[in-house]
Amino acid sequence: MAEPAENTASAISDLSALLGDRLSVSSGVRDHHSHDESWHHPALPDAVCFPHTTEEVQDIVRICGKHAVPIIPYGVGTSLEGHVIPEQGGITVDMSQMNAIVQVNAEDLDCVVQPGVTRKQLNEYLRDTGLFFPIDPGADASIGGMTATRASGTNAVRYGTMRENVLSLTVVLADGRVIKTSARSRKSAAGYDLTRLFVGSEGTLGIITEVTLRLYGIPEAMSSAVCSFPDLDGAVNAVILTIQAGIPVARIELLDEVQMDACNRYSNLDYPATPTLFLEFHGSEAAVAEQSETVKEVCTDFGGSGFQWSTNAEDRNKLWEARHNAAYAAKALRNNSRMWATDVCVPISRLAECLLETKKDIQENNLLAPIVGHVGDGNFHLAFVLPEDDDEEFARAEAVNDRMVMRALAMGGTCTGEHGIGTGKMKFLQAEHGEGVSVMRTLKMALDPENLMNPGKIFSA
Amino acid sequence: MAEPAENTASAISDLSALLGDRLSVSSGVRDHHSHDESWHHPALPDAVCFPHTTEEVQDIVRICGKHAVPIIPYGVGTSLEGHVIPEQGGITVDMSQMNAIVQVNAEDLDCVVQPGVTRKQLNEYLRDTGLFFPIDPGADASIGGMTATRASGTNAVRYGTMRENVLSLTVVLADGRVIKTSARSRKSAAGYDLTRLFVGSEGTLGIITEVTLRLYGIPEAMSSAVCSFPDLDGAVNAVILTIQAGIPVARIELLDEVQMDACNRYSNLDYPATPTLFLEFHGSEAAVAEQSETVKEVCTDFGGSGFQWSTNAEDRNKLWEARHNAAYAAKALRNNSRMWATDVCVPISRLAECLLETKKDIQENNLLAPIVGHVGDGNFHLAFVLPEDDDEEFARAEAVNDRMVMRALAMGGTCTGEHGIGTGKMKFLQAEHGEGVSVMRTLKMALDPENLMNPGKIFSA
Repeated sequence: MAEPAENTASAISDLSALLGDRLSVSSGVRDHHSHDESWHHPALPDAVCFPHTTEEVQDIVRICGKHAVPIIPYGVGTSLEGHVIPEQGGITVDMSQMNAIVQVNAEDLDCVVQPGVTRKQLNEYLRDTGLFFPIDPGADASIGGMTATRASGTNAVRYGTMRENVLSLTVVLADGRVIKTSARSRKSAAGYDLTRLFVGSEGTLGIITEVTLRLYGIPEAMSSAVCSFPDLDGAVNAVILTIQAGIPVARIELLDEVQMDACNRYSNLDYPATPTLFLEFHGSEAAVAEQSETVKEVCTDFGGSGFQWSTNAEDRNKLWEARHNAAYAAKALRNNSRMWATDVCVPISRLAECLLETKKDIQENNLLAPIVGHVGDGNFHLAFVLPEDDDEEFARAEAVNDRMVMRALAMGGTCTGEHGIGTGKMKFLQAEHGEGVSVMRTLKMALDPENLMNPGKIFSA
Repeated sequence: MAEPAENTASAISDLSALLGDRLSVSSGVRDHHSHDESWHHPALPDAVCFPHTTEEVQDIVRICGKHAVPIIPYGVGTSLEGHVIPEQGGITVDMSQMNAIVQVNAEDLDCVVQPGVTRKQLNEYLRDTGLFFPIDPGADASIGGMTATRASGTNAVRYGTMRENVLSLTVVLADGRVIKTSARSRKSAAGYDLTRLFVGSEGTLGIITEVTLRLYGIPEAMSSAVCSFPDLDGAVNAVILTIQAGIPVARIELLDEVQMDACNRYSNLDYPATPTLFLEFHGSEAAVAEQSETVKEVCTDFGGSGFQWSTNAEDRNKLWEARHNAAYAAKALRNNSRMWATDVCVPISRLAECLLETKKDIQENNLLAPIVGHVGDGNFHLAFVLPEDDDEEFARAEAVNDRMVMRALAMGGTCTGEHGIGTGKMKFLQAEHGEGVSVMRTLKMALDPENLMNPGKIFSA
């Protein structure tokens, strides 16, 4: 193993004095922090530290700044585009030990948490309060990481994304100063929206050390439903009409026939292997019944069949477990495979077209890539299931991904609806934002002139 | 009248060559652009121009930049904290002639408009599409101005503010470059949130030349209701419980007994002159009925009486007309008066306390200041009704306002929920944001190093 450069060694020495055994250079710990859940090539940090307080994070940032060593904030490592990989080495700041729930303000429907709290941990904690935090990206991600990547997931169609649900942040800036981005009130028109500047900044502008989140009352009733369609067009058109009619669906997820087949095999289910919508409704007993019946009619009009809704919690859990296991189910379609998850988001009027052209491209290139979509938002995912070592097939997948992204952009969409840029989507940023990328660079330079905060992410420089 | 400085004269000459008679130096036009709807002291621009295209705005900005002349973007002048007043002279860029509705994407529930479109104009235009744009700050403000001030209003409790409802912006930067801040898709995780950076930036970072907005289906049914309470506490607690129960009220407005008395006189109504909630519900027939009945029970539990709901459009219009005329009704309480509207926003758990302490302060200082509140958000307004020329009474009002803001900040609130900073709230920004203000200044300097975009606003420098 190579010795770290002199400046890095000095930083490690200072950090060790500050943190004692909460600074690790062990190869096991470094290896654990060398990757996320994506296919992106790992890279080792020179050391990993585990702060307990905002003040310690300030000290860490100042020490790294003094020695000009890169700083990589890390939650629980569930990102999908290489966000936490130390591309240029440096110090990974693992926030998982800052995992206290600081405050729950039940009357105000908000809470204050440290960034290492995971979404499941938060909802466990909230259970007795009658409140819940709806954002659900699938993985049990940390709230800090979800904030930094502007995560969303299955409930976003009703409850919004992290953009809408973060009320305020405490952030340690690149120079070690600490700011609170906003008051705790529900809205404010007081100056620039610093909160939204940091939501989705992927650790490149500062380290989030506290997050104030909106919460929601657990609905009086929930119902879930499944509906099979003969084709993708019908399923997507049913979604469009549902959204347009203002029916406040809580979840409306599309699984294509490849994914349904995978789910049937993996979870031992017997749904038709055709494009299928999974739905959930939240509200009063009467509202949930009315919404379910209305959407049933809409689905039937578009050729949907077998629509059954249930308020039974067991049925609901089974359904969403199958949905949440979609990635594992996809991976199980092929032995010794690796997954490559990618996502785009388009205006919903273009969704069917974008999906169908993408599916055609997958088939023509003889690839295995089930599709699931948060279709209420126009957002869908491909999961390429690739052999472990086949560069040629990987290259074909890469070309399909490139074309899918450019197709989405041409339709007024974005290169990523919820996974973020990391390193994986960097090459598309210019095509999507044009001159906007130089504005992003200007902001980055203004707040992190030495380019030490998670360098090599979002921007290609 | 003083001659403009040499650089300003040169800019005017260049602008005149560019725009012909769409550049005005007439005293009438300059006077019209010297003030907004607030009490803040007017100041004349040196000239006013009326661009028709984004390219013209780019040229205007480049000309002003070349001659180092301040640029003040102007919508329709309905701001309330002095946002459009040319504090340092310069060129006002009146966007009212850029008032085309560029695109309505009904399937996607969005539209693209020029910034001079007003909210009423947009809703008139949308009427036949079955869609509407919900943000309603009272005045018939321009969409550009509403974006620049992060406006909200009575529907925000259900539909959010401009923060949640702007999908993308076209912006001319201080150096004349033009950017599009985002794709048109419902969500994106692609890089920094440039859209939110400009929403609420009050013209200090660039000029908005196009706005993509979210739209909503006109609800199948709407009902409205009024309920009188013996005291403020009861009214506010009814609101808290309603929000906490997740009832999706579309509007929930509080008028105090002073305001109710004013409305009764002005609109010839006979409501009890006690704290009163005005409500509106949107949804299906059944949902609206259920929501109305549930909220009626909640209100009754907190001492509310006379709760009657109606789906009759005439009743509803009468009610909301009275609400929208609240400011005129307040002004009519006193002959030859002027109004000073101010707002704060607090976490809803502190709302009753903040309101009651503020009312006590108003009474102890012998001031006339009705209160209306978007209470579902914790946001309320004072409207000081002041004699035209009484500096002593004005000073007392100023002291009450200062104490109200500091009270709101101490409760975790903000110095303005929806009016913005302009010049009027500048003195509170540091108290609210601390070190965050220096981050805002850093962003401003990075994007407008010559400080030409609406100088003297938000920041005190």
